Amino acid sequence: MVESDKEDRLYLDDLTVGQRFASTEFELTRERLHEFATVYDPQPFHLDDNAAKQTLFGGLACSGWQTASITMRLIVQSVPFAGGIIGAGGEVSWPQPTRPGDRLNVTSEVVEIIPSRSKPHRGVVKLRSETHNQRNELVQVLNATLIVPRRIDAKGKSSVA
Amino acid sequence: MVESDKEDRLYLDDLTVGQRFASTEFELTRERLHEFATVYDPQPFHLDDNAAKQTLFGGLACSGWQTASITMRLIVQSVPFAGGIIGAGGEVSWPQPTRPGDRLNVTSEVVEIIPSRSKPHRGVVKLRSETHNQRNELVQVLNATLIVPRRIDAKGKSSVA
Repeated sequence: MVESDKEDRLYLDDLTVGQRFASTEFELTRERLHEFATVYDPQPFHLDDNAAKQTLFGGLACSGWQTASITMRLIVQSVPFAGGIIGAGGEVSWPQPTRPGDRLNVTSEVVEIIPSRSKPHRGVVKLRSETHNQRNELVQVLNATLIVPRRIDAKGKSSVA
Repeated sequence: MVESDKEDRLYLDDLTVGQRFASTEFELTRERLHEFATVYDPQPFHLDDNAAKQTLFGGLACSGWQTASITMRLIVQSVPFAGGIIGAGGEVSWPQPTRPGDRLNVTSEVVEIIPSRSKPHRGVVKLRSETHNQRNELVQVLNATLIVPRRIDAKGKSSVA
């Protein structure tokens, strides 16, 4: 596991497949859940305790997109890629809902490193991020495609061929 | 195109491949962009006009997860599935960033309908949702896996075999 360190940003050339990053925790308060659902996912199972009991969720749960957004915050804090975390897209799944009061953490692993053939300044990194709650239940798996800059020497060429 | 109508919810058995749904618009204000980025994606290209100019984005852009969240709101309003919009996961890509002031709309199409073998009360629907801005530029493609209930007769069997 690598601790995040803003002074020591990682370029594509610094990464290795299997490299892992662990985040801190983020608590999903009832207020944050309500605030997000009101704007972005106004459905009964995200907004009303009683209505939620009658649904597939069996009780109040946050929007999957809020789980994804919290995951993004934890990735931003824990994965110190040069240039930041810039996603072109990804695959997301939610094996279980996130509940009010849950504390989430994210473990990310470098799965693939693909230097660009046409753009010597950057490449693509596939990052798999698993989001767990405080009971160590898996609530989200994200396989993201990230754009990561390369180290460039004084001649404008990348330092690793 | 089918206009959303809360009085006329659609079950899995009512759907056909190729069926389409068009949403209204959602405007991403500068305030909403800042509010979301502060909590969920605190990176310079989402928070600081000048810093954003130096990055791949070339100017302030919202988090891809906010584009996804706005898309969810527009799907909830425009796709009248019985039981609501409940996602098990999906694939998302962001061909272009969303900018402050952009007005987004979503067109969704039923791509696949898969009744569950083990659960007669429900099935899975694959829905492809394209998100465009007011210049008709594609800012997101989402292929979502949704859980949709089936019509059940008095004997507890689905009305379509």
